[in-house]
Amino acid sequence: MKQSHLFTKTRREAPKDEVSKNAQLLIRGGFIHKEMAGVYSLLPLGVLVMNNIVAIIREEMNKIGGQEVFLTALQDKSVWEKTSRWSDKEVDIWFKTSLKNNTELGLGFTHEEPLTNLMRDHIRSFRDLPTYPYQIQTKFRNETRAKSGIMRGREFLMKDLYSFSKDVAEHEAFYEKVKSAYKNIFARVGLGDKTYLTYASGGSFSKYSHEFQTITSAGEDTIHVCEKCHVAVNDEIFAEVKKCPQCTATELHIEKAVEVGNIFSLGTRFSDALELTYLDQAGNKQAVVMGSYGIGPGRLLGTIVETLSDENGIVWPEEVAPFDIHLVSLDNGKVPVKETAERFYADLTANGASVLLDDRDARAGEKFTDSDLLGIPLRIVVSEKTMNEGVVELKNRKTGEVRKVPHHQVVDVSLSTGEDSEDTA
Amino acid sequence: MKQSHLFTKTRREAPKDEVSKNAQLLIRGGFIHKEMAGVYSLLPLGVLVMNNIVAIIREEMNKIGGQEVFLTALQDKSVWEKTSRWSDKEVDIWFKTSLKNNTELGLGFTHEEPLTNLMRDHIRSFRDLPTYPYQIQTKFRNETRAKSGIMRGREFLMKDLYSFSKDVAEHEAFYEKVKSAYKNIFARVGLGDKTYLTYASGGSFSKYSHEFQTITSAGEDTIHVCEKCHVAVNDEIFAEVKKCPQCTATELHIEKAVEVGNIFSLGTRFSDALELTYLDQAGNKQAVVMGSYGIGPGRLLGTIVETLSDENGIVWPEEVAPFDIHLVSLDNGKVPVKETAERFYADLTANGASVLLDDRDARAGEKFTDSDLLGIPLRIVVSEKTMNEGVVELKNRKTGEVRKVPHHQVVDVSLSTGEDSEDTA
Repeated sequence: MKQSHLFTKTRREAPKDEVSKNAQLLIRGGFIHKEMAGVYSLLPLGVLVMNNIVAIIREEMNKIGGQEVFLTALQDKSVWEKTSRWSDKEVDIWFKTSLKNNTELGLGFTHEEPLTNLMRDHIRSFRDLPTYPYQIQTKFRNETRAKSGIMRGREFLMKDLYSFSKDVAEHEAFYEKVKSAYKNIFARVGLGDKTYLTYASGGSFSKYSHEFQTITSAGEDTIHVCEKCHVAVNDEIFAEVKKCPQCTATELHIEKAVEVGNIFSLGTRFSDALELTYLDQAGNKQAVVMGSYGIGPGRLLGTIVETLSDENGIVWPEEVAPFDIHLVSLDNGKVPVKETAERFYADLTANGASVLLDDRDARAGEKFTDSDLLGIPLRIVVSEKTMNEGVVELKNRKTGEVRKVPHHQVVDVSLSTGEDSEDTA
Repeated sequence: MKQSHLFTKTRREAPKDEVSKNAQLLIRGGFIHKEMAGVYSLLPLGVLVMNNIVAIIREEMNKIGGQEVFLTALQDKSVWEKTSRWSDKEVDIWFKTSLKNNTELGLGFTHEEPLTNLMRDHIRSFRDLPTYPYQIQTKFRNETRAKSGIMRGREFLMKDLYSFSKDVAEHEAFYEKVKSAYKNIFARVGLGDKTYLTYASGGSFSKYSHEFQTITSAGEDTIHVCEKCHVAVNDEIFAEVKKCPQCTATELHIEKAVEVGNIFSLGTRFSDALELTYLDQAGNKQAVVMGSYGIGPGRLLGTIVETLSDENGIVWPEEVAPFDIHLVSLDNGKVPVKETAERFYADLTANGASVLLDDRDARAGEKFTDSDLLGIPLRIVVSEKTMNEGVVELKNRKTGEVRKVPHHQVVDVSLSTGEDSEDTA
């Protein structure tokens, strides 16, 4: 894409009412727009990043047998009354609305109820189980305070996967599969090192559930990390067990963290309430055993910005970046910089790289500042100076490393540099 | 995909409260689930079809320079008050909700206001124009009656494109481009023949706006068709002009139709109200000239089902179908039908076809009935009988044409048959 075509502009300052670092940087870079506290629209660069995150999640969900669905936001109260999650006393984050005939509706903050209800049309016998529907869909949560930028929104995209199993053993086998799919996802979006499988309260049906917590000073949670096991324990559980549940070490260190994912055994709570049953091989009616598994792609996006940016701006990991290469053309009309940059743009694009070409009529300093802010992994500069030397200048956004590469090697080196940084990310 | 893995089941009867043909067939096939009147969730097959429609629309939008954004559903009333579209007296289809502090919010039924407001951050000079943001995003409309299945929903996906131009001439040039992009879209989703560019009321800023109307008995609109010009006039305009605006013929025939798209010149209505201006080359402040352009992917999906299905079920056009090929294995344990079908499945998939393999343990009659209902363009049957002849049976869902093809030609013939039907669709 040519930057002159991109309608967004970067800005030096974030809006004064924006207190979170992730939203400040994303607004300054033109990735998002703040509609109100906790409610952010995505601009073209934000759409590109979000699509990359969603594509990774979708791929990992499909790998473990997930089947994609898309449920509605509007919710019929009858199904939520059956699980005692309709009244505002029971659930305090509902947004409610109503039809013209005054029928009260809710906006889905999660989808256990409508999905369990829907599955009654499709699950009849043991042959229909297990099955794993998931969706990537907008949730609404009426948060009293929303001050963590896109890390805690009132309206946000969520990937929610649900498992429907014949029994606890089948459920637990899938639960472990989701654990490892989640680890893949966090590694691929660049948060693997900072993200800990965290023991959390299991509710009525299991001793523990699991959160995935990423260490960041912007987090609203406190976790107790066991470095030896690379796991953590959340505050609630730590108050109870006071040790690492794996190695029983008691010397855990405290960190601020944000919950980037959770996996939860639901037992038969929802299938009992909504009468989702199946006939087993002996012809007996059994309740379906369920689990739910969430990841917020927008929260991941915010957490990446929060944890991986530096004083100059955002640093996108390879698989998440809006473009692979930021090709900066510093044309001064004296030598054919523009034509050369256009040729590299065409060649790199033809070789499968996604490239943002800064062809704007702007000063070099402004272009470099913007490039650092936007955080594309590899920057290539073409200027009068590099033309005279027959080279371009390659800069790695993450390491700051700069090297000069002769014109005839630009495509090969740029593509392989991308691969290198991915390996070391 | 293997059909034994697909969690949805077909059903013989649609729910009794479902009166529309499109929703009846889509529910029976397991494409959608009805949550309440006008509110439908997508099941895996529905997600596949919707993704295909959305991909076509996105491609055509990008071709004319569109830049994808994603705005929020939650709406701040201040921006809508400026254009007098906030109160329920002015707009009678709002869903309203509120924050914990009682701040009233709306759920977006369209996005002229927030997008115009947002563009104030990015449009400053004539150099920033023209620009064309679009999104594919969920709209909410509080319809009093919702009885047309997914053709008129209370919650539905919408592609809304907006144009921001320097002047009327630049606006009109883009308006014509959108017309032809829309024609491409309707042709590609299989509705080209039945869809008419239709003259509609232009509002304050132009004589006409344009709707795209598809002829169907399920439509809620009446249009007056001029076959000679392949255009139509809507009821409102016909009452006024009583002739074809192009050839001036007065003998137009009346049809029921559904509006599948519209393109609209907004002039400076929104830019004036929300103070979206730019500095022209002479340094003078000017109002931005706007247009808006909508297509509902869900309505398109419903219209395809409504107009192209037959007495046995749905007939998907090639580019929209959930799979290219329905490979039906009629294994009876006597000859290696299963193994042969699995081999064709692998070979066809490896050659780029998307295939649904009916590997279920079910009777032939049930499999054929389901196959007709699901409407995948090409059916391939492998059975004891075809095995003994060394062939498979190919059936074109649309024409009903059946042919036998020797095993070694199955991949080549199947792939080219797909291409043929696409050309003639």
